[in-house]
This record gives sequence, structure tokens and C-alpha cells, in this order.
Amino acid sequence: MLMKTVEQYLDSLRNIAFKVYLFGERLENTVDHPLIRPSLNAVAKSYELAHDSQFEHLLTACSNLTGKKINRFTHLHQGVDDLINKVKMQRLLGQQTAACFQRCVGMDAINAVDSVTYEMEHDLGLDYHRHFRDFLLYVQENDLVVEGAMTDPKGDRSLRPSQQEDPDLYLRVIEKRDDGIVVRGAKAHQTGALSAHEILVMPTLTMSEEDADYAVCFAVPSGSEGITYIYGRQSCDTRRLEGGTIDVGNCLYGGHECLVIFEDLFVPWERVFMCGEFRYSGALVERFAGYHRQSYGGCKVGVGDVLIGAAALAAEYNGAAKAAHVRDKLTEMIHLNETLYACGIACSSQGTATASGTYLIDLLLANVCKQNVTRFPYEIARLAEDIAGGLMVTLPSEKDFRHPEIGRYIKKYFKGRADVSTEQRMRVMRLIENITLGTAAVGYRTESMHGAGSPQAQRIMIARQADLEQKKRLAAIIAGIDGKDF
Amino acid sequence: MLMKTVEQYLDSLRNIAFKVYLFGERLENTVDHPLIRPSLNAVAKSYELAHDSQFEHLLTACSNLTGKKINRFTHLHQGVDDLINKVKMQRLLGQQTAACFQRCVGMDAINAVDSVTYEMEHDLGLDYHRHFRDFLLYVQENDLVVEGAMTDPKGDRSLRPSQQEDPDLYLRVIEKRDDGIVVRGAKAHQTGALSAHEILVMPTLTMSEEDADYAVCFAVPSGSEGITYIYGRQSCDTRRLEGGTIDVGNCLYGGHECLVIFEDLFVPWERVFMCGEFRYSGALVERFAGYHRQSYGGCKVGVGDVLIGAAALAAEYNGAAKAAHVRDKLTEMIHLNETLYACGIACSSQGTATASGTYLIDLLLANVCKQNVTRFPYEIARLAEDIAGGLMVTLPSEKDFRHPEIGRYIKKYFKGRADVSTEQRMRVMRLIENITLGTAAVGYRTESMHGAGSPQAQRIMIARQADLEQKKRLAAIIAGIDGKDF
Amino acid sequence: MLMKTVEQYLDSLRNIAFKVYLFGERLENTVDHPLIRPSLNAVAKSYELAHDSQFEHLLTACSNLTGKKINRFTHLHQGVDDLINKVKMQRLLGQQTAACFQRCVGMDAINAVDSVTYEMEHDLGLDYHRHFRDFLLYVQENDLVVEGAMTDPKGDRSLRPSQQEDPDLYLRVIEKRDDGIVVRGAKAHQTGALSAHEILVMPTLTMSEEDADYAVCFAVPSGSEGITYIYGRQSCDTRRLEGGTIDVGNCLYGGHECLVIFEDLFVPWERVFMCGEFRYSGALVERFAGYHRQSYGGCKVGVGDVLIGAAALAAEYNGAAKAAHVRDKLTEMIHLNETLYACGIACSSQGTATASGTYLIDLLLANVCKQNVTRFPYEIARLAEDIAGGLMVTLPSEKDFRHPEIGRYIKKYFKGRADVSTEQRMRVMRLIENITLGTAAVGYRTESMHGAGSPQAQRIMIARQADLEQKKRLAAIIAGIDGKDF
Amino acid sequence: MLMKTVEQYLDSLRNIAFKVYLFGERLENTVDHPLIRPSLNAVAKSYELAHDSQFEHLLTACSNLTGKKINRFTHLHQGVDDLINKVKMQRLLGQQTAACFQRCVGMDAINAVDSVTYEMEHDLGLDYHRHFRDFLLYVQENDLVVEGAMTDPKGDRSLRPSQQEDPDLYLRVIEKRDDGIVVRGAKAHQTGALSAHEILVMPTLTMSEEDADYAVCFAVPSGSEGITYIYGRQSCDTRRLEGGTIDVGNCLYGGHECLVIFEDLFVPWERVFMCGEFRYSGALVERFAGYHRQSYGGCKVGVGDVLIGAAALAAEYNGAAKAAHVRDKLTEMIHLNETLYACGIACSSQGTATASGTYLIDLLLANVCKQNVTRFPYEIARLAEDIAGGLMVTLPSEKDFRHPEIGRYIKKYFKGRADVSTEQRMRVMRLIENITLGTAAVGYRTESMHGAGSPQAQRIMIARQADLEQKKRLAAIIAGIDGKDF
Repeated sequence: MLMKTVEQYLDSLRNIAFKVYLFGERLENTVDHPLIRPSLNAVAKSYELAHDSQFEHLLTACSNLTGKKINRFTHLHQGVDDLINKVKMQRLLGQQTAACFQRCVGMDAINAVDSVTYEMEHDLGLDYHRHFRDFLLYVQENDLVVEGAMTDPKGDRSLRPSQQEDPDLYLRVIEKRDDGIVVRGAKAHQTGALSAHEILVMPTLTMSEEDADYAVCFAVPSGSEGITYIYGRQSCDTRRLEGGTIDVGNCLYGGHECLVIFEDLFVPWERVFMCGEFRYSGALVERFAGYHRQSYGGCKVGVGDVLIGAAALAAEYNGAAKAAHVRDKLTEMIHLNETLYACGIACSSQGTATASGTYLIDLLLANVCKQNVTRFPYEIARLAEDIAGGLMVTLPSEKDFRHPEIGRYIKKYFKGRADVSTEQRMRVMRLIENITLGTAAVGYRTESMHGAGSPQAQRIMIARQADLEQKKRLAAIIAGIDGKDF
Repeated sequence: MLMKTVEQYLDSLRNIAFKVYLFGERLENTVDHPLIRPSLNAVAKSYELAHDSQFEHLLTACSNLTGKKINRFTHLHQGVDDLINKVKMQRLLGQQTAACFQRCVGMDAINAVDSVTYEMEHDLGLDYHRHFRDFLLYVQENDLVVEGAMTDPKGDRSLRPSQQEDPDLYLRVIEKRDDGIVVRGAKAHQTGALSAHEILVMPTLTMSEEDADYAVCFAVPSGSEGITYIYGRQSCDTRRLEGGTIDVGNCLYGGHECLVIFEDLFVPWERVFMCGEFRYSGALVERFAGYHRQSYGGCKVGVGDVLIGAAALAAEYNGAAKAAHVRDKLTEMIHLNETLYACGIACSSQGTATASGTYLIDLLLANVCKQNVTRFPYEIARLAEDIAGGLMVTLPSEKDFRHPEIGRYIKKYFKGRADVSTEQRMRVMRLIENITLGTAAVGYRTESMHGAGSPQAQRIMIARQADLEQKKRLAAIIAGIDGKDF
Repeated sequence: MLMKTVEQYLDSLRNIAFKVYLFGERLENTVDHPLIRPSLNAVAKSYELAHDSQFEHLLTACSNLTGKKINRFTHLHQGVDDLINKVKMQRLLGQQTAACFQRCVGMDAINAVDSVTYEMEHDLGLDYHRHFRDFLLYVQENDLVVEGAMTDPKGDRSLRPSQQEDPDLYLRVIEKRDDGIVVRGAKAHQTGALSAHEILVMPTLTMSEEDADYAVCFAVPSGSEGITYIYGRQSCDTRRLEGGTIDVGNCLYGGHECLVIFEDLFVPWERVFMCGEFRYSGALVERFAGYHRQSYGGCKVGVGDVLIGAAALAAEYNGAAKAAHVRDKLTEMIHLNETLYACGIACSSQGTATASGTYLIDLLLANVCKQNVTRFPYEIARLAEDIAGGLMVTLPSEKDFRHPEIGRYIKKYFKGRADVSTEQRMRVMRLIENITLGTAAVGYRTESMHGAGSPQAQRIMIARQADLEQKKRLAAIIAGIDGKDF
Repeated sequence: MLMKTVEQYLDSLRNIAFKVYLFGERLENTVDHPLIRPSLNAVAKSYELAHDSQFEHLLTACSNLTGKKINRFTHLHQGVDDLINKVKMQRLLGQQTAACFQRCVGMDAINAVDSVTYEMEHDLGLDYHRHFRDFLLYVQENDLVVEGAMTDPKGDRSLRPSQQEDPDLYLRVIEKRDDGIVVRGAKAHQTGALSAHEILVMPTLTMSEEDADYAVCFAVPSGSEGITYIYGRQSCDTRRLEGGTIDVGNCLYGGHECLVIFEDLFVPWERVFMCGEFRYSGALVERFAGYHRQSYGGCKVGVGDVLIGAAALAAEYNGAAKAAHVRDKLTEMIHLNETLYACGIACSSQGTATASGTYLIDLLLANVCKQNVTRFPYEIARLAEDIAGGLMVTLPSEKDFRHPEIGRYIKKYFKGRADVSTEQRMRVMRLIENITLGTAAVGYRTESMHGAGSPQAQRIMIARQADLEQKKRLAAIIAGIDGKDF
């Protein structure tokens, strides 16, 4: 069986010697750590549902490398249907986890690297594509999670990589050997770093000739010597250490980010997919970003579904479900959420084949998709907070609720509709808090803003992809302006 | 040859004895009337481009009735590709005319009537569907324009049809005979009424049993005895009577609306497709509205392309094209416009077959599409007005510009960039005025708002189509609320 | 009696020999021209209400020059109450005319010129301020309308005045004589040009040394030899020539703009208030713009009141007034409108005395006011169009309505609620059309956008007026960042 | 000396025997508890600045009761200047604390109770007003913090107080005695409960006759027997227990909310200000809410200033301060923030005297102010998150930063501009996190939404306060509709 079970996935992570720091301490066991485990549970959902007959049509695909049934997260998209099913799978997992399930970055990375290495091989005669396909075969056969690592720390944004005072602020090749290369640098905001078996490193922006050393792409096992992980804090993270199940909002699922440091890491040539060919860095960044901007038209929509549902429950529990303004706000939330989904579907529907056969989304529409994702989840969250009411942020702790003496006050005074238990109401409030302010807000808000590139990055792409000259010609013809002027 | 040329189309209209009033006068010749002709030109574009090798893949289709190549506007959508190509065709025509090209309503009507009559025939054993297909065959074989007539005057909105003081405020059957029916009433806001060969009348809302007489659907030739057309005024309409080419903004293309009165009109049974089967009225309204809400994700996007292009030209002519805020506003316009397109594509991509084989768009996404159309064109127009500058509404008349003495003042003082003629600049200003305030604003703004149903109609459908109960279940599971509560 | 009556005002205009062109013809009589008269009626309201005991507290003031009761439009603001009453007067006149009443520009100009000439006199010893006060005394004693003329044609926006290929694209001094100066150039978009007795010309932007010839400010009678007016077209302008009272929407009141050309016009020194002192041009522009950005927090709010009222009537006539979404949209319109008013009041309330004693509004808040005016009227208009329904743009003409045969169809089929006449409904529809698409849309939309400076002009001022450095210090203190870093 | 120092304030709190629970434990010392102390520090700022010559003109006022100089938070507004200075004081304290400084609720409560009790005394001959003024004198003379307690738990929102299954879900009088009354119930979301010396309880909505027992208003010392406080959780609250100064974002200042339970509490008659006079409950709620909606036009603007400053610093530290889109976003944040301020100022400027002499804000504009507060801080926060970048939510912990081995990685890789320390950058990121997601987000977001009434409450008031009938008349006159129809 190619596809791992949840237990096999967790076991496989236990075998990786991550070097991790969290709150100033070196961790021995990441898999069972209460802060980290919910992230692994979210990724594990991608294994679980692949074995679920109701969902396997979305979670699995037929490998174009082997003809075998594989997890879609390791698949190269072979057509428009694959692109659409990817988005549907992501919405499903967002619905099931209400969190970032982390595995998309790797999927988007392998699809981007595939077509770009193909073109490098075709144009330059280098064997990057063959190496990459070998790596991918290994990933598919072992049903691995790949972390796509793109974002460098970047230092001073007004300077290019080679202009930085510290040359390591973008990851770079510091040595080329016969058997491989040595790299130094770091990748920041690495979502799901501790959930992954492999790291696929890509350049973070279009490199020019003087930055050629920074045009590097490779894959290494995530437990490799030379890699250090420092765990990032999330809003409300330590509630997971308190032992309860209410205050965390989402007890089972979560996400995480790490700073990943590559300290003079050696990478053998067969794992190197770009090394100095800076002219291809732009295409790689553009395609990866494009795929990942499509992704948000799925995953964030799924989380949005949960948030809309939670707001509807909150209204019911408050006895306010029939108020016209509440129903209208729920409709607005649905409308915004489905607009995001429409964008995810549309850029998939208009996808086309690259030279390698792997399908690429429509880049203009994918950027439009992501641009909306930088706006609408914020408005959906605002409306959820409106419907929920202030209780969401003034509720006493679970310990007070469980307290033998004062628990009764909370049960009595925070009761909403008489037929709904106070605990139910508290749980829904905490879930909304989790998505709008707590650990999941990191994914639902900030990642919606900056993941796959900050808003301005999409605007630059939108301006570039839209054919403004053609629009000017159309206008000139209608206005009766002589064609010679154009 | 099945498909008419532009000249054949115009000639065929000359043969129709429309009974039309405009500005208090009975018109004899509609085809060459300066107010009406631009509308016919816009429709004619759908004939012209069907013969253009560059565009025929969008403008034509293979009839499922005959296997012949027909104009797509007379086609029943046979798959997702047909639905997507419809949207692309509409965007193209919007780009080419910067106006409402009017032929969509009929296309959307025939597709809706097809599947509903099929279901009526299947469920009730009535031969409506056979009649309808005969009618459609005639339309296809003669490449006709069909006007889809749905919107009744409606009188007092707080009352249902049969409750109105005047029972004719919704169109109704006043007599059933052996050979046919007699109907009385009117359809308001009939876009393109004078461009059409046939009128396909549908009920305007879901009828209940007491309103069964209002559940009527039929088709008649547009020149039938008993039909009177009263032409609707548009903003700036009479500029078309002034003789110039600048002040009209869009010299060639336009749109129009009529009040169409059916005064005791006889309809033979073979042209009747619903008569009293009120239970099917809801599906007919919902599907027609759905198709037409999809349409706006195409046509309005095409007009938007022209407006964006015009704004970009205006900025260039003003010497302001490089200002960061101007470029950012153009990007925002593109972003909003493409979001509409994404919605049009998405609801098509997720279309499914009805029982008759005709494909229906995804209704939720089509309503989301239209809801955005009630907002974004307004913001695009606002941004266009921002970029254009005040000159757009303070320009002297074309006659002043052509005036032997004072024309030189206008040429001198309204010159923008030195290498651009003042006339060019005036033409672009007038085009922007036309779309944002003038005749085309009726289509780009008000029709975006109310065409295919006012905003609230979409909100009702969005609330109904979205499965809120499922979202509540998803939230409850994540929140750890016992399943028994659901 | 200092203050003119309406008849005296109109008569005084009859005595001015305007040289005007409109639609390619030289006009003899402007006062009774059907296109122009509604503008004069709107200005005349400022005379009428000054004699109305209900409103005179807003329309009049006590002159600080003479101690006499004068029309507020000729007054120098002597305190915060004057600034606030100005806004209230403007809201009142907007409510009464639903149009631009044109007299504000001059009021804002005299207030700006007063304090700047005072400072020039104080700093440089020039007698501009004495000259200006003499001019103002004449205006007050004769209750005149002053047109404030600021906006030059500007040509290529990327070039400064002296860099333009044609040096006349900004108005400039072409000769200085012993007895006065000669100027050449034009002012565009001159609102109310034909309603005014005097023109007060100001520079359009901050001039630098090489543009010193363009730093010129003066006043001349509007009928002076050397001045030519070319009337600007407005959307739907010619409906005023058709003879009816319905289709025009607003039968009595309107506004207008002209291109005003100064062809080698001589100005005597006693009417010159700046001539080459470029360092003072910035303050003059900034203060005039500030006053005028305040003004929009009054006049547009008044027009907004009428539009909200019209939408409420339309809803009533349609039988839709009780629908929750309609009431909510009306509330939103009110909310947006009152937000504009709040900004107008706030910048007045925080006004301070200049060196001349004339009060200046808070510049930051006045720019914030205007920035909101570039947005909210568009949204209010959109909501009005939503509530009105499509009928607003598809109504047949008044001539059809009056037609002996077909008039009955219109009366029958466009009846809304049974107790409301069709004519009432038509009138309200046409009024909404007038403000959102027709002649008044020029004032309510485009002028809201570009009058007193385009949106970007306010953004530059907002960024400049807000003390961002102080905000950074506040943040640094809270964040615990050592003060040395600042 | 009437006015306390900071130390006197803190000492006075040490003498109050609060019965408080937090995280399931009974607290002995609230003043020095690390979770609570920042709240007290924020309130203490109102004492500190009253002694600061730079700010005392805002923080103090001359008592109309005694003629003495008192803290403005205990003052009855005696004119428009008082209302405006209140808003300026609140903006100042928001700037200095970047948190909710809690003392406004009491100030708003005493002003509302003053005029309503005056009217009750005048109308009904009851001595509530005399009692209230005695209480207020005590508050002024001792410079006390008063908690205004309005919001009841409310149970099922679709039911009125007396219809609830549990009658205690709204606070009510359960016994009237000769010497006083006994009350039972709770007040939820009580901001600053543990910072206050006295609690002033008011009804939460307009009561009808059957709910007369719920129409009760009184004041008691906050340490009274029978009152229990349960501390509410905030996002990221426990970071204050970790011992560092970076991760908390705002080390010194904060806010808090409690559930306050009144279990059969006795109140002597001299501290009762309403007891059953349900007809006055509406005015009390409306005025208190009005004052508090004004307040948000001050305090939230001050916090907004800090957030804008923090975003500007973040951009600088990232080397992105000169990017056009960053500067434009900062301008937009300023624009929105100043719009809120304008609304706060405007409703103050248009205030009027009540019968008691205490000034009341303009209720329409105060509701407009608060309605904007439910929107703009969310957008300001979104823009801050945009400018800050993802680092804000992925930064490792302070302990990692201080760690002897891995701290160097963080210093190296999270360095932005070379001349800015990594710690500075971290501190600014954490401050932005604090306001947008952390403890201060409770105040800046959720309180902006629900404090002083949820958005729909303002919409109801806006609809009621705006004279829609007058607007309809204005429109009818302009439209030429016969006055008889109105």
C-alpha cells in the first residue's frame, strides 16, 4: 500500500531527529507535544480522508509517474479536473480541521519545480528535471509530507540579496563541490515545518545576475544535520498547555510556523534542482506563488465555512437567529466566502498545460483570488465577531466554569436559550475567538494576508498579467480614435 | 447557410411591423432611427463575429437538435465548455460594443424553458417541451433574436399578483380557447425589444395556487397584433439626435429598453409552454435568473475592460499615467473586473446537466456572481471618474469644438500631453462619461444592479442555496459539541 | 438695504455683458436661457433665504468690516460659530435646491485670500490686503456673487507650468504695467461662472521660483472685456429644452460649469492681490482648498438628504417601505451622509484664528472630510439606485405619458401602490435619476470627487498634516523601545 | 487636595475587599497581580496626567457642584467645551496607554443618571436626583473611579426580561424594604470592575410595565458584601505570567472585564436612583449609550494613533517605509482614524443642555460615531497587519531570543534594516500583535464592535433620530409633487 495511515504518518515523524527549540528549550519529542500535536493532527487528516470512501476521489489521484493511486498532495496536476479537485480537497480539509493543514505548500512547490526544471533541462541540457522526478517518485511511493520553503528573512526590504549587510539574510550557496553544494541561510514563517518529512527549498524572488548564488533550489530530509528549527509563537498558544478542552477553541487541530536555519548544510547534486540559473528563478517564484494563491481559494473557504457555521450557532444559542440583520450578516459572510471559492475554481478551470505536461492555473485569476483572500476573511471575521457578541472575549476560564463553587454562577448567568447548555455556548464562543483572535487567526487572518505573498505582490502580478494595452485599444476603437495613435 | 449576416439581420427587422412609440410619436422605421440603430448595431455584432474566423469558436456551436453549426445565442448548452464559452463570448461582445448587446436574455430564456418544460412533460405528460423544441428549431434555423420577457410591472410590491387592485399588473391568461390562449398585461424594462424577432414570455416570480393564471409562458413574433412598445428614455439619449460623433461617447453601439404591452393577445397552443402549472414557475424563474446572473459575469466584464482601457488612456493623455496612485487604481479596477469574471467562469465550470440534457450553472455561484455585479461596476466606475478628472463632465459641446471662432480655445486649453490631440482626449472623456453617466450607464450601472433580479433577490437565493445546516454541523464538531444536539 | 432680493439679483445679472457660447452659439440672454436659469435659481435661493426669518440666522452675518448685517456668503468667518453656521447654511441650501448653488467657491476664496494677503502685507509690506479689503467691502455692500477661479487647464500633468509646451496652460502674467497687469490663460470647470458678478482668480498650485509669473491673484467683473465663457455640457442637459417638468427631474434648480478664457485681460493694481510672490501661493491654495473641502461637508449632505428622501418615497410608492433590507439601506445612507456632516462640523469646531483674525478650519479634518466625500456620495447613490429599481432608467418620456392614446398604458402599468399616482412615482424616479445620472450627478458625484481637489490631493495633505513622527514616538514608548532611537 | 496621586489611587484599591475569582482561584491581592496590574496602571494614568501641567487642562475641570478643581472623569459636562475636552482627554489617554483605561464608563454613567434623575424628580417629585448628587459629591471629593454597570447577561435575546425562564438573567429588585432594596442578578463584560471604588448600576434596555422590577439604578461600593467578580479571559492573557517584557506587546498597560454577580445585595435608599419607574429607563439607556458612543470617538482614536505609529515603525525597520503602497496604507489608516475623531468632536460640538444643566451630545451624531467605530478599527488593524508582515505571528518567544545558544540565530535572521536592533523590531511586531490579536484586541476590536451597544443598536437609533419624514418632504418639493400628498 502506497498510502500511509494516520498512525504510520505519526510514527514516521517519530523517527525524524528534528533539532527544535520552543520557549527556550530543546524539544525531544515533537509528535506528542501538546502545542505541536494539533498541527500533526491537521496534516494527518490528509492521510485519514484518503482512506475514506466518501472523500478519496478528492484526496487521491492517479500518478502520472507510476499509474498508481497516490495521495493528491504528492501529485502533479494532469488536467483542469486535477486543479479543481485540488481546490475542493482543500476546502474539505479546511472544513474538517478549521486550521491550516500545512501540506499544500509542498504540493504547490513540487508542481512549480516540475515544470521549471523541465524547461531548464530542455533549454540548458541540465539534468535537474530527472533529479527532481526521482525525488518526487520517492515522495509519492512513501506518501511523504514535503515542506515548501520559499520565504527568506529578507533583512532590509529596500536592498537586494547581495546588497544586504549580512549576506546570509537570503539563503545562498556558499560552496560548490563535486558531490554537491553547501548552503547557508534561513527560511522564515515555515508553516508545518515539524509535520514534514522533506524540505523543498526555493528562491524567494526573481534573482538577477549579481544574486546568482541565491538562485538555488533543492530538497533535503527535514531531520538533516545542519538544520535547526525555532518554533514561532501564536496568539493564545499556551492555552494548549492548560489541560482543558474549552478555552483552546479548537481542541484537536492547529497549525504552526518555524524559523528554519540552514547552517552550512550539504546537499548532494541529485537533490539540487537549481544552482545559479537565476533566469529561471522568476518563473519558479511566479508559478509556486500562483499555485499557492489558488490554494487559498480552497483552504480559507473551508475554514470560513466553519466560522460561518459557528456564528450561526452563536446566534441560535443567543436566541437571535431570526433577527433580519443577523440573517443578512450570515448571508454576507456566505457571499464573501463563496466569492473566494469562485476565484479558486475559476483559476483552476482556466488552467493550461506547461511543457512538462503539468497543469498550471491561470496566473491572473489566481492572483485575483489571493488578493480577495487578503480582504474577505477579515470582513467575515468582523461579521462573526458582530454576531457572536462581546461574550467571546470576556468569558471566564474553563477552570472557573469547572469550579465547585463559582461554576454555578457561570452556568446560570451565561445561559442563552433555555434549551442550550452554557457549555455549548461557551464552546462556540471559544471557537469563534480561536479563529478570529486565537491560534487559528494566525492562519485565517495573517496567513490570508501574507501567505503566498503579501497583497502588493499580487497587485504587481495583476497589473503585469492583465493586458492593459489591449484594453486601451478596445477603448480607442469605441471612442472613434484613429488607430494610428496606437 | 443557417447563420444570417449583419445585413440579413437588419433586413429581417425591417420586415417586422413593430407598433412603437417614442417621445410621444408613433415610429415608422425603427431600424434607421438614430436612437435605436446603435442597439441594433450591438446585436448585429453577434451576427458579424459568428462569421469571423477569429471568434467563431465562441460565437457558434453545434446544435444538439440538428447537428448543424448555429449561433451560440440560439444554442442549448450541452456541457460545461458551452457554459464557459458563453461567458467568454459575452465578455468579447462587451469589449467590442461597450454596451448591452441584448441577445443574452433570449439565450438564457430558451435554456431555462427547455429544462423546465422537459420536466413538466415528464411529470405531467403535457407536450410543452415538444412545442418548445419546435419553436427553438425555428429560431435556430432562422438565426433569430429572441427577447426573453420576464419582468412584470408588479404594482404594489407588498401584494401578490392576484391581490393587486388592477389584476393586469402581472401578465395573465384572461381566456383559454380550444386553439390557444388570450393574455393581457405588460413586461417592463424589456432590453432589446426592438432588436428581436420573437418574444418569449415567462412568469416573473414563483406563483402560488391563487396566482395560477399568472403562471404562463409562451412565445410570439415581436410584430404580433396586440403588442405595443413604448420606448424608455436613457440618460443623454437625445445626444444621438444632435448629429455629432464626439458627445455621444459611443457613436456606434448602444442598448434600449421598452415597456411592452400585451393587450388581449392571442397565442396558439403550439406556442404555449406553461399555462397554469404554477408549481413549475419557481424553477423557471430560478433557472432563468441563474443563467442571466451568470451572463453578467461576462458582458459587464467586457464593458469593464473598455472602461479600464478608457481610464488608462485618459491618464496617459493627462500625463498622469506614471503616478503611483493612478496605476494602483487601474490595478484595483482590473482586480474587481476579473473577480466578476472569475465568478462567471466558476458557476459555469461547476455546471451540471438537467434532465433534458441542457446544462445548468451552479446556482449558488451564479447568484454570488450577480451579487458582486451589483457592487463592483459601481466602484470601477467611481475609480474611472477619479482617474478621468472633472473634465469629463464640464467639456463644452462638440459644436463649440467645431466652431470656427471659439473652437481654437477648446483645442488650446483642453490639450493634455503635447503629442495627443485635444479631440482624442475629448473622445476618451466622453466615452467614460457615456459608461458612467450616459446611455451606457443604464447598462453598466442600473442593469448591473437590477438586471436578472435586484440585489436582495440574490441574497435570498444565496441564503437558500448555501447549506447553513451543514456549516453548523462542521462548527459543532470542531467545537466539541455533542452530536446529539444536531 | 444691503441685501439684494431675488429679483434684484437676477436684474443685476441682466446688466452684465457676458460673452458666452453654448452649443456653438453666442448667447445674448443668459438669465432666461432654459439651460442656465436653474443655476441662477439655485444661487437666488441664497438671496431668498437671507430674507426668511426662519433661516436668516444661517444666511446672514454681522460684517467685521462694517458691523452691518450681510449675506454670509460675503462674510469673513470671525469665529468657530461662523464656521459651523457656514456648514449648516450649506446643508440647508443643498436640501432646498438638490443642486450645486455655486456661491460657496467665492466665499471660500475671499476667506482664503484675506488671511494670505494679510500675511503678505505684514511680511513684505505690500498693500495687497488693503486692496483686497476694499474689494470685499464693495462685494458686501452690493451683496455680490463672487466666482472663485482656481483650476487651470494644466495640460500635461507631469510638467510644471513653465515646462508646458504652451505656456498659457496655466494662467499667467504676461505684462506688468504702471497701472496694472495683463494676464492670459484660462480657468476650467468654473462652477457658476454665469451666476457671478465678480471673478476672483487664484493660482492653482504651489508655485516655485521658475513659475513666479503664474503666482497671480486678482479680481475682475465677470463681464470684463477679454473674458470669454464656453458653457460645459452636463449629462441630460438638453432635457431642459424639451419643455416638460417631469423628465428633467429637478425642474427648478441646477448648476453649471464653464471654461473661462482670459485673453490678455488687463487688471488694475487695486484689484491685484498677488503678483509673483510665489512663496505665498502654497498657503493660498491650501487654505482655499481647506475651506472648500469643509464646504462639501455641508452642501453634499443637503443634496444627500434629498436623495435619501427620494429613495424613501420611491420605496413607499413601490409598496416596499417595510422590507427590512430597504429600511436597512436607508439607515446606511443616513449613516454615511451624517458621517460627512460630522466631518464638516468637526473641522469647523476645531478652527482657529489666522493672523488677520479670519478663522481657518482645522486643515487635517477638512481634508478628511473631503476624502470621505469622494467615496460616500457614490455609495449613497448606489443604494438609492438599489431602492429605486430599474424603472428609473427605463421610464418612457413625459411626452408619451401625456400622449392621448398611449398615456393610459403608462398610467396603468407604471402604477405602484394603488393610492399613489403614477405621475408622483415618475417624478420621484426622475429626481433620483437626476441626482445619480443626470445634470445633478455632475455635482453630486463628479464634483464630490474632483471639486476642491481630487482624492489624491487630500491624501497628500492628510499625510502631511498628520504628525506621523509623534505617532511613532507614542508606539515606541508603549513598545518599550529606548527613546534614544528616536 | 481633592485629586489623588497614582500611589493614593493604588493604595485606596488595596483597602477594598474584592471577592474575585481568576482561573478557578480566589484572589487575595488584585492590585499586584500581574494579570490585573496593567489595568490599574491604565486607570492610574488618569490620575497621573491630572497632575501634569501639560495635560491638566484636559484631565481636570471645575466642578459645578463645588467650584473646585476635580478630575474630569468625575465631572458633569457644563457645556460644549467640556464635551469636546472629554473626547480630547480620551484620545490622549488612548495614546498614552494603547489600552482601555476603563474610567469612561463611570463618567458617562454619572452624566446620564444626572439628567434623568433630575427629570424624574421634576416630573414625579421623587428625590432621586438629590440622592444622586450626594453620591456624586462623594465621588468628586474623593476622586473615585466609578464603574458604570449596564449590560445584563440577557439570556435568550428573543425574550424580554420577565419572559426569561430564569428571571435573574436581567438584574432586578427582589425586595423593597423601608431602608432600601434587595437586588439579584449580574452584569456581564464589566470593563475595569477591579479598578473601581464604586459601581453604578443601570438598566440595560427600555423596560415596559411588566418589566418594572428590572428598571433599577443604584450605586454601591465595589467591595460590598454580596458582590462576586469572576475575571474574564483575554486573548494571550497568560503571557503576562511568563515574566518577560517583549512577548506581552504592551508591558505596562491593559484592560480587563469581569462577570459581576449581585447575590441578594442590599442597597440603602439614599443610593437608589431609580426603582420601578420604567418609563425613564429608555432615556437613561439612550443617554448613557450616547455618551459612551461619543467616548469611542476619543479613546479608540488614541489607540489607533499608537497602532498607526507602530505600523510606520515596522515599515521603517523593514526598510519599506518609502514604498508608495506602504505610505498610502498609512495615509488610509490616518484618514479612517481621523474620521472617527471627527465624529467624536462633531457630536460634542452639537451638544445641548438638558434640564439639569448637564450637557448631552447630539444623539444622532454620537450613534453615527459609534457605528463607524464598529468598522474602521477593523480596517485599520487589517492595514497594520498588511504593513507589519507575517513576522508578527511567527516570531519565536522571548525566551528563545534570550537563549544563550539559539538567541544569536534570531538576532541574525530577524534583523531588518542594519541600523535597527532585532529587539526593536520584535518589540514593534509584538505591539501590533497585541492590538490586533492579543489582549488589547479585546478593546480595540471587540469592544469597538460591542461596547456601548452592538452595531444594530446604533442603526436603530440612527433610523429613529434622523428625521426621514422631513427628508421625504424635501424630495417631494424638489420633484414637484403636490404637497397635499404629504
